[in-house]
Amino acid sequence: MTHSVAVFGAAGYAGALSARLLARHPSFELKTVTARSDVGRQLDDLYPHHRVGLELERLDLDRHAGVEAAIVAYPHGAAAELVASLVQRGVRVVDLSADFRLRDPDVYAEWYRPHPEPGLLPGAVYGLPERYREQIAGAEIVANPGCYPTATLLALAPLARAGLIGDVVVDAKSGVSGAGRAATDKTHFVTVDENVSAYGIPRHRHTPEIEQELTALGNDVRITFAAHLLPLDQGELVSCYVTPAGTGGGDVADLYREMYEHERFVELTERPPGVRDVRETNICRISVHRDDRTGRVLVFAVIDNLWKGAASQAVQNLNLMFGLPEGEGIS
Amino acid sequence: MTHSVAVFGAAGYAGALSARLLARHPSFELKTVTARSDVGRQLDDLYPHHRVGLELERLDLDRHAGVEAAIVAYPHGAAAELVASLVQRGVRVVDLSADFRLRDPDVYAEWYRPHPEPGLLPGAVYGLPERYREQIAGAEIVANPGCYPTATLLALAPLARAGLIGDVVVDAKSGVSGAGRAATDKTHFVTVDENVSAYGIPRHRHTPEIEQELTALGNDVRITFAAHLLPLDQGELVSCYVTPAGTGGGDVADLYREMYEHERFVELTERPPGVRDVRETNICRISVHRDDRTGRVLVFAVIDNLWKGAASQAVQNLNLMFGLPEGEGIS
Amino acid sequence: MTHSVAVFGAAGYAGALSARLLARHPSFELKTVTARSDVGRQLDDLYPHHRVGLELERLDLDRHAGVEAAIVAYPHGAAAELVASLVQRGVRVVDLSADFRLRDPDVYAEWYRPHPEPGLLPGAVYGLPERYREQIAGAEIVANPGCYPTATLLALAPLARAGLIGDVVVDAKSGVSGAGRAATDKTHFVTVDENVSAYGIPRHRHTPEIEQELTALGNDVRITFAAHLLPLDQGELVSCYVTPAGTGGGDVADLYREMYEHERFVELTERPPGVRDVRETNICRISVHRDDRTGRVLVFAVIDNLWKGAASQAVQNLNLMFGLPEGEGIS
Amino acid sequence: MTHSVAVFGAAGYAGALSARLLARHPSFELKTVTARSDVGRQLDDLYPHHRVGLELERLDLDRHAGVEAAIVAYPHGAAAELVASLVQRGVRVVDLSADFRLRDPDVYAEWYRPHPEPGLLPGAVYGLPERYREQIAGAEIVANPGCYPTATLLALAPLARAGLIGDVVVDAKSGVSGAGRAATDKTHFVTVDENVSAYGIPRHRHTPEIEQELTALGNDVRITFAAHLLPLDQGELVSCYVTPAGTGGGDVADLYREMYEHERFVELTERPPGVRDVRETNICRISVHRDDRTGRVLVFAVIDNLWKGAASQAVQNLNLMFGLPEGEGIS
Repeated sequence: MTHSVAVFGAAGYAGALSARLLARHPSFELKTVTARSDVGRQLDDLYPHHRVGLELERLDLDRHAGVEAAIVAYPHGAAAELVASLVQRGVRVVDLSADFRLRDPDVYAEWYRPHPEPGLLPGAVYGLPERYREQIAGAEIVANPGCYPTATLLALAPLARAGLIGDVVVDAKSGVSGAGRAATDKTHFVTVDENVSAYGIPRHRHTPEIEQELTALGNDVRITFAAHLLPLDQGELVSCYVTPAGTGGGDVADLYREMYEHERFVELTERPPGVRDVRETNICRISVHRDDRTGRVLVFAVIDNLWKGAASQAVQNLNLMFGLPEGEGIS
Repeated sequence: MTHSVAVFGAAGYAGALSARLLARHPSFELKTVTARSDVGRQLDDLYPHHRVGLELERLDLDRHAGVEAAIVAYPHGAAAELVASLVQRGVRVVDLSADFRLRDPDVYAEWYRPHPEPGLLPGAVYGLPERYREQIAGAEIVANPGCYPTATLLALAPLARAGLIGDVVVDAKSGVSGAGRAATDKTHFVTVDENVSAYGIPRHRHTPEIEQELTALGNDVRITFAAHLLPLDQGELVSCYVTPAGTGGGDVADLYREMYEHERFVELTERPPGVRDVRETNICRISVHRDDRTGRVLVFAVIDNLWKGAASQAVQNLNLMFGLPEGEGIS
Repeated sequence: MTHSVAVFGAAGYAGALSARLLARHPSFELKTVTARSDVGRQLDDLYPHHRVGLELERLDLDRHAGVEAAIVAYPHGAAAELVASLVQRGVRVVDLSADFRLRDPDVYAEWYRPHPEPGLLPGAVYGLPERYREQIAGAEIVANPGCYPTATLLALAPLARAGLIGDVVVDAKSGVSGAGRAATDKTHFVTVDENVSAYGIPRHRHTPEIEQELTALGNDVRITFAAHLLPLDQGELVSCYVTPAGTGGGDVADLYREMYEHERFVELTERPPGVRDVRETNICRISVHRDDRTGRVLVFAVIDNLWKGAASQAVQNLNLMFGLPEGEGIS
Repeated sequence: MTHSVAVFGAAGYAGALSARLLARHPSFELKTVTARSDVGRQLDDLYPHHRVGLELERLDLDRHAGVEAAIVAYPHGAAAELVASLVQRGVRVVDLSADFRLRDPDVYAEWYRPHPEPGLLPGAVYGLPERYREQIAGAEIVANPGCYPTATLLALAPLARAGLIGDVVVDAKSGVSGAGRAATDKTHFVTVDENVSAYGIPRHRHTPEIEQELTALGNDVRITFAAHLLPLDQGELVSCYVTPAGTGGGDVADLYREMYEHERFVELTERPPGVRDVRETNICRISVHRDDRTGRVLVFAVIDNLWKGAASQAVQNLNLMFGLPEGEGIS
């Protein structure tokens, strides 16, 4: 038996990849893909390598909302309203935007703008499966984490749960697909090629999301977060520099083995991982090191920003929501 | 009037670029280029774009040491002996290796191996012109800084001189030319392309050099330093995360303007600089930001690792040593 | 029921990918991976993204030849002897080298060296499934085509079968993985990055293989073939410029539709295809155009050189040899 | 004594580089840079690495046309009118567009649209200095060649002058800067990265320009021309496959040596050249090979598309127009 599903906002990178994963998923049937631009074009034409032979339609809730579940890949701010409409019609949603990630509407307002649907926030679950597996299973709205928070939280959770983070600097590095499909000066090949620079300094919007979840793990901390754009397509590395709280004694590697030994999508490595190691997978690779000279703990984590950082994690969440094997369709 | 000069070790990236810069320098005459491998080949054949029509010779001090000055581009450990021989014959040397950068032979021994020529260390000057301009002018041996220390020290000097660095994390990112010309698994195109990872964790050899110079500026601090390899050719970005000492009040931007307003090779920018902005120049671009949420100071600095991080800085040092305009041949 | 299989020479790019495809193939069981260098290392360690948890062993025919089939990924010249030993022991072989591609040992000798096992040549089948499907099914030795011949022959077969090629220039462009895993000056990132040049001029070894197969299709023609190295990892484009024989009338597009409409791994496109469209697939995409000004027919074909140009085509051949669905494990 | 000069259309890649070269030219004084978009921005802000501290102004002929010479970097079709206005005011012009390259207005109309200023065509000189040095010296309007024609004509001129080209296929490959600064799907990093494809098939607008000049050299021939976009920034390679006319006997290499031995910006190489060899130079590197199997002559030529293919060739033309050393400011 398959579950009917739609992808709303399938013309962008994350939405299109979601459509590809669902189109081949044994337990879902992809009914509809919609777009705001590019209506009428074949998804195959925009993304030949995804090989999804569906036409991008203009959203029509009366026709399109008769599905059991949906992935919404709308921009921040624009997603909330659509999600509200879908929930009202009984559609279970994984939302790729930031609109339901922050539990506190005041924090959302501080980093984005006043929240359009604050009443829905209490019912939304933060969709990091390794952390909220059980809550996701029963959720109506799953807020798919940002790509940076996904990697950062997987990198820091074992330390945070033990309350070991006194202070932390996160230096994040991402390929260009993270900046989206919009053609701008910043995404022009000639701008990016042979280049690297920081952006969003000093207030990147993924910051409050990371802090919220570290606090929820029991480690209330303010982080320093800086993002950098790299001349590559897909892939993301977060380099985390942790000043331990208290004496920070004990073998931190044990904390990681303990938390992740049964997680199929988290792999621990001896040496710092490279983003190629996880390209086009739902896997996060993590290495942890102690610098004896300074006492700092260094944690490096890599993901594919479009997969584990967006689309394949969304499918992982859908699998959980429908009681399917967690890795179905994304392994 | 021109000064005769040689480049010993001109088959590698930094040595070859040094040869190119000196071959076109109005005040130097490049007499000799030597190599350890590739003897007998034309430099033009190895590096067509440098357009230096000289043959790489095997080192023969009797024939080659009759020059006024030399750039030595030998590997760490191998350079010291050659530098000693040259100095003995009255040749003034800019050494690109690490062999004369650390003033304390015990520190050198800890990070490299026992120093082969400790007696020469007191006479060597650390070749960061913006810091040691006057000492360089009279030096017999100038130890050209490492590429990471060059960018990091220019990024941190204004804070260090004011004693404002309580703690600092340096996340450094470099193009592949920094790994040298040796063809290995690590420099293979397929390894680097679409990839990024940290290396030399947790003890990178540029660490003591940076700490030595911060301490000399009056700010005794242990740093956390991590290097990353990027899929680009030339260019280096250091992202510095400074926890201020004391209250850290005042406008740190003023410290930067004050120190650098008369430095022609240091440029301050509002937004985080990109490595393309300084490609094939002797320029270091720096931006400084305060994160009001955490109180941290963020400093981003970019250089071309082969130019300001090696060859053009070596020529800048030679210019100082011979009383020439500091930017001659590298502007 | 599964068939036991081995990959001999699994440390290189094509062998390692073959191992990955077979390790997940529902109808094959990968028993052994061997290597000549890197013996004792885990394949996972060399190629983390392939996720094959096998150790590279030194070849020991007594222990390793008890399989039903093997993929041999040895260098040209070195493969023939191993293939002979395997065939003698009843192992069916897909050979990735050039050793069994040329039917005439004199031609082999002219482009390579005297053939070490000419007696086996008559029993070998040229492993282009779209052309020799039936012969492959019964073959003991399948000579997997070179990457350039694969794309070129698929691009030209419809014209050749109709005897329409009067003359043809093939300008081929390949990513660096086509040059293999050996770390050399030519594969160093700094050599390849921001560069492009022709190589193997004017006699590339893939030339006789292409001519042999065009002749076998009924179109005896001497081709001009030139290869170029591009700054990308995987992917290959051949641009074919055909001067038609005779009047060359009629709609050439029909010839392509007719030959390929039932081929699942060949796709015809209106616009010239890009190599990204077929990355990590067994698919060849082809566009055909007539230049009315000159009467020339232009054909562009793209493949992934490591997939359809090597490893996935080898698995496609194995599928045929064992009566399995042709696309099993590679779709 | 310096000559006053302006760059009209300095916000694009070629115009901006022209401004940089003129700003440092010892014999020109850059008075004005104008733009159609980006008016009011500093050129330094758009192109930090060019280091030109001028503000982009809106065109005002009354204020801006008081210069001795101008480089016009407007789009095709838009340039002609401005050039006409400038010439009327006595300004000598190097025009980077296609508007004055084709001598026959009917041919222009066939490939572009009806020519807006056909009366000016007879007075325009095709600005390939190696071919029309003397005519350029006295010209009012110099039509700077397209990047592909520059490389192709330098590659083929020795053969064409001898009437040896019976037929020729030109497979051209360019970096992305050749597509201009406009941010589109086609220039988005994610589209170009790890990709290659042909474009403008089968009628690229540079075709008639090449044919016109081959005919002018005495070799009336219709060419097949196909362009490809590569994942690199600056650089262009044309691979020319020539079927000789007549017996084609004799050593073609002699023809190249004879024509180019005194040309400082054309270099002949034994092996096929790479685009890196000429990056950021005004140099064209050419290798010529005979394929004895087919009798074809293969010629490979590389240039930097923004330098010799546009801006530095424009300055080379200006130097000729003002009786300056041909290589001044571009060597």
